[in-house]
Amino acid sequence: MPDCIFCNNEEKILSNDLAYARFDKFAVSEGHLLIIPFRHVANYFECTVDEKSAIWSLVEEGKKYLDKNYNPDAYNIGINAGIEAGQSIMHVHIHLIPRYSGDMENPKGGVRGVIPEKQNY
Amino acid sequence: MPDCIFCNNEEKILSNDLAYARFDKFAVSEGHLLIIPFRHVANYFECTVDEKSAIWSLVEEGKKYLDKNYNPDAYNIGINAGIEAGQSIMHVHIHLIPRYSGDMENPKGGVRGVIPEKQNY
Repeated sequence: MPDCIFCNNEEKILSNDLAYARFDKFAVSEGHLLIIPFRHVANYFECTVDEKSAIWSLVEEGKKYLDKNYNPDAYNIGINAGIEAGQSIMHVHIHLIPRYSGDMENPKGGVRGVIPEKQNY
Repeated sequence: MPDCIFCNNEEKILSNDLAYARFDKFAVSEGHLLIIPFRHVANYFECTVDEKSAIWSLVEEGKKYLDKNYNPDAYNIGINAGIEAGQSIMHVHIHLIPRYSGDMENPKGGVRGVIPEKQNY
């Protein structure tokens, strides 16, 4: 799709047959990666079995890459599947977010923060 | 582990050989499921290839179960891997969070909310 920024994969850090990884331009933390299938498909659940396999394999590779280059203390992995879940670019992307001790006051809850007032329970 | 609430799988909704799904007791939204390997292992990245496969297969089944029983508009999938990422129960669990139109004012950003002030970019 000519207008889709994730169909443009010139900035790829890692890749395999069906997916690639690039940095998030609005990074939540240093090293924040996005894992993206090459095919233009909107919703994670619409990916083929092979695409999902390629994506999760690249999440593992991305974690190794970040361990080596950023040395984070922990990770969040997250997917927004659908506009009502916060997805804004309608081409599947998995967030691999390295986390660092002290990057926020009380990190408890993590991905519960999709609805921020539910994060700290 | 006798003291681990996720080693107690009496409340399972779905299961396969290596993992099961139960409702989250501090649900972010109606139907919020957790997908959990039976084996007591703390960090997602320490799961075996077979456990990860079982977990992701159950995410698909969980989505079908929720589509049928809750009819949500979208989904977040999320993992907190490590205390600094917000993990509080040290037995792997994947959050499958159904989302509903209007469940918050501006859902944009979704899983970026692991650090709440970074959600709305």
